[in-house]
This record gives sequence, structure tokens and C-alpha cells, in this order.
Amino acid sequence: ISSLCSTTLVAQDLPSWSNTDARQQLTAFVETVTKEGAGFVEQSKRIAVFDNDGTLWAEQPMYFQLAFALDRLKATQDKHPEWKTQEPFKSVLAGDLKTALSSHENIAKIVFASHSGMSQEEFQQVVKDWITTATHPKTGRKYTDMVYQPMLEVLDYLRANGFKTFIVSGGGIDFLRVWAEQVYGIPPEQVVGTRVKKEFMLNADGGAQIMRQAAIDFVNDKEGKPIGIDNHIGRRPLIAFGNSDGDLAMLQYTMAGEGKRLAVYIHHTDKGREWAYDRESHIGTFDKGLDYATEHKKDGWILVDMAKDWKVVFPEVE
Amino acid sequence: ISSLCSTTLVAQDLPSWSNTDARQQLTAFVETVTKEGAGFVEQSKRIAVFDNDGTLWAEQPMYFQLAFALDRLKATQDKHPEWKTQEPFKSVLAGDLKTALSSHENIAKIVFASHSGMSQEEFQQVVKDWITTATHPKTGRKYTDMVYQPMLEVLDYLRANGFKTFIVSGGGIDFLRVWAEQVYGIPPEQVVGTRVKKEFMLNADGGAQIMRQAAIDFVNDKEGKPIGIDNHIGRRPLIAFGNSDGDLAMLQYTMAGEGKRLAVYIHHTDKGREWAYDRESHIGTFDKGLDYATEHKKDGWILVDMAKDWKVVFPEVE
Ligand SMILES: [Ca+2]
Ligand SMILES: [Ca+2]
Repeated sequence: ISSLCSTTLVAQDLPSWSNTDARQQLTAFVETVTKEGAGFVEQSKRIAVFDNDGTLWAEQPMYFQLAFALDRLKATQDKHPEWKTQEPFKSVLAGDLKTALSSHENIAKIVFASHSGMSQEEFQQVVKDWITTATHPKTGRKYTDMVYQPMLEVLDYLRANGFKTFIVSGGGIDFLRVWAEQVYGIPPEQVVGTRVKKEFMLNADGGAQIMRQAAIDFVNDKEGKPIGIDNHIGRRPLIAFGNSDGDLAMLQYTMAGEGKRLAVYIHHTDKGREWAYDRESHIGTFDKGLDYATEHKKDGWILVDMAKDWKVVFPEVE
Repeated sequence: ISSLCSTTLVAQDLPSWSNTDARQQLTAFVETVTKEGAGFVEQSKRIAVFDNDGTLWAEQPMYFQLAFALDRLKATQDKHPEWKTQEPFKSVLAGDLKTALSSHENIAKIVFASHSGMSQEEFQQVVKDWITTATHPKTGRKYTDMVYQPMLEVLDYLRANGFKTFIVSGGGIDFLRVWAEQVYGIPPEQVVGTRVKKEFMLNADGGAQIMRQAAIDFVNDKEGKPIGIDNHIGRRPLIAFGNSDGDLAMLQYTMAGEGKRLAVYIHHTDKGREWAYDRESHIGTFDKGLDYATEHKKDGWILVDMAKDWKVVFPEVE
């Protein structure tokens, strides 16, 4: 039945990709694993994982989830008069982001104040309200229009070729799950991310919900990514996409599996259409990963040069 | 496309179920949520979760995973001469299970000695070797033939009606994932269970694997089940199946969602064809859950009486 119903797209289904090495290597790999022969991989093992920030959508001038956190503090400040005198909230409300975001401790306080102390359903509603209205400070686009058109095409192309697509993000699993299905076609159960601790709460009236705690349960970044993949997916991916040193362990884990696999790094080289950054940036630092990918090109590692390999960056918006 | 390709089975696809209340309530519910109308639920939200031990397969006279652990100790004793004098291993090897399993501490030692200190791939191979050869002490069947035929039919029936089926087990996630796809049609990424801690290990030669540690990371039982569901699935189930007090929180969490939902308890009432046990058993204790389900029958809780509601228990074996 599955062979009757599946539609196999061909390479021209990546219209936003220039006909360069990157695209050719990607489509050659997909052809190898989907065609009968020595490289064939059965459909259930066609697992593709994608980092999110800087891989599927932009991440400058700050992680979009942090913009959400800051907006959320402003929106709820009336309920927290104490924030007027407490750091880092005082600086957030005064618009002094340099002070507000000056330490990991400050950022953690901002994240917990905006992401915990409510039920999962309440949090989901808050994210939904924000993501459907907030706009990017530089482009004026909705954040969900700051996704990369060529990557949307890769998601579709892989799914049309029998791959199951997963997000494996250092960002918050529950933040992503609210909109990933609509924007990327990736359902909640295929999103892996960083988690806060949660507690099951049973009410006297039979109500029951999951409450979000102000503590980290799991950090899905760096060496955490292979663990998150193992925990949620239970199979080694066949293809992995990332953009920073935070993805290196995930890509190495992928490539160390049996048979031919593919590791794809998106290199932010496009100052004109997007942002150009790598080794020196503290958002999306791409230093060790850049060296490793360059060194291992012959082993199936692909470096996507955004400026050269992508005809367009963002989707057309009506 | 999906409506062209999906096959909707009807109620006669539950041939091992007697035409009693339990079956009628189940099929009436599925018809309600799949037919256009007030009770319709879109396909992406049709999440069905199943406890494993005592719900999808038998669990007497001991959890089958514990039988695996004991067999594993016996099979590896030559590498551990110290076990001849160390408890609980000494008792395991001497066949004195009463002493060996007399405390939680002993059981933990047995589980860690058999389930950790190796890579994920090594563990998967060990489980595969065991599950394809080991047989149940009473019936002589392979453990994978100790699954409940009526439940295999429920899995197929729900999937044919657009449900995504998940295992949510107190047992080990990695033990289950080895064989759940072949036996239940449930892929690794749809298995939720108890986990040991893991570590990502990168070798000098570029090899990379997940190593299993001798420590618990997450216990997917009781109040842990709703948390495990939230973590892995990210949506509240529409239907939940269980058999013991360990499933009560999962069933309550399911039923507290919006709209009509279904909670199904399998009650082990069949001494002749299987085992009969509930309140007093320390495997699959069914006490609070039995009271709760009885009290809430009018709210959509179903108590399946194995002796009356199931025409057959185990599948025919060639
Ligand atoms: Ca990234
Ligand atoms: Ca059970």
C-alpha cells in the first residue's frame, strides 16, 4: 500500500537551491538510499533530524525564543510590581538588554519567569498568542516567516522520499511544539528539545494537568543532542542538519552509524539577505564544527554556503 | 491523499472480542471521533496510548523483562566470578529467586548488572538474541507469543481509523523498542518507558555511541506516565489502555482532556486461560484503579473483563 500511495519527488522539488555541489550531494544521497540496490535503506530507518535556530529559521539578532521571553515579561509586568526593583527584570522593563542579558544567571531568571509556573495548556496558549502576532525587529516579518525557504523544501523533499523528519533543538521543546506542525509539517511527537521539569497535578474535581516548574530537566544541546535523539527516536539518524558547534556531537553521532549517512552544516555566509557569522559569533558559534566539516568533506559532510547555494533565503510573504 | 489511501476498518475487525459492552463502547467511541459531526477529532489528535505489561502482553509469574535480566546474569556469569559470593547474584545463580528478589535494592542491582555498562547497540543485540529464543516457564511459548490477541486487534483497528499508537510502559524503553515494531507495529519513536542514564562517547577513530549507565534517569510509572506522555508525545491522548494502579494517573490525565475520551482498564479475571489477579497481587496491583474505574463507568471508563469480553487470549502459534 505504501508504495502505491507515496509520491516520490525528484530533485527539481528543491527549486530554491542552486545547482551546486551541496544540492547534488543531497539528492544523490537520497537517490542512493531510496533506490533498490546496495545503498537501499528501508523506510522505517530513514530518520532525518534538524536543528532549529539558524538551521530551519533565523536566530539573529537574538534567539527568537528569548524575544518571546522578554515580550512575555513586559506583558505580565502588572502582576509583578516587584520586578520594578529586581534584576534582571528591572533592566528588561527599562529596555537595557545589555545588563539584562549579561549573565547566564540573568538569562535563566528571565526564562523561568516567562516559561514556568503555569500548566502546559496555559503555556501553549501564551506561545500561540505571541507567535501569531509578534514581528522581527529588523525585517518586520512574523517570526514564522523568518524560516528558510530552501529548508522547507528539504523537509518536503525528504518526507516525499519516505523520511520521517524530526526537530532536535537546543530551544524549548514546548515552545517549538506549538507551531512546528503548521510551519514545518512536524508534529509535536517529532520535536526534541530542552525541557523544564514538570509535575502531574490532579485536582479534587477530576481535572488533571502537567505543571511547568522553574528548573531545567534536560538540556538538548551539544552532547545532549545524541542523548535526546536516543531518548525520543531510538534510532540513529540517516541525515542530520545543523549550523553550529552545538550540533557537532549530533552530526558525529549520525555519521558514526553503519552505512552511508549525511551530515549537513548550514554556514551563514549571506550578509546581504540574512546575517553573516560563524567563529566569533556567540549566537550560533560555528568554529570547531566548521573545521570538522571542512576536514571531513570527503566522508559525506556537506557545508552549505547560504550565499552561493540558496537562490532565496526567506519565503515570499503575501 | 490520506483519505484516498487509508483503509477504514469496521467493528468486525475485532474478531476476538465478544459482542459485549466493552467492545461496543470502544467501537462507538471510535465511530464518534472519526465521523464528521460534533464529536469529530482531526487525525493528528487521535493519540492512543497503551501500557505494556499486563495490557499488551502477560506479566506472570514475573515481569518478562525481569526474566530477561535473570537469564542475562546466568549467561554472563563466567565474566563475573565475583558473583559467586556477592548477593543478590549468588542467589540468582543458585536459583534462589525468593532471596534474590527480596528487596528493591536487590532488584536494582540485578537490573543494572544486566542492563548497563554497554553501548545502546550492544544492549539491543543482547535483547534481540534473548527475545527470539527465550520461552515462558509455564506455557513454553516465546514471550512475544504471550501477547494478547484482542489487543493486537485493537492496535490494528485504531491505526486503521487514523490513530497513532504509542506504548507508555513502566518497563524499559530500550528493552521494548527492540521488538515492539515487529510484534505490535509500534516503531521505536512511539515507545515511552523507563530509562537509564546515558552518556555520549566519541572515540578517537570517529566512532560515536551512546553508553548505558548504572543509574535511573526517568521512571515512567504512576505520576511519571503523564510526564512521559507530555515529554514524548506532547499531546493529551484520546484513548488510554492500562491494567494496574500504575496506569491510573495516565488514565486520569487522558480523561481530563477536552471533549469525549476513553479510559480502558484490562481486568485479569481469567484464571483458566491466563491468570486471575487484582487487588492483592504485587505484580500488576489493581486496587485503587479498580475502584476508580468502577465509580466512573458513566464517564467513559471501561473495565474489560478478560474472561467474558475476550473470545481468545493469546494468538494461535504455528
Ligand atoms: Ca542552531
Ligand atoms: Ca501494566
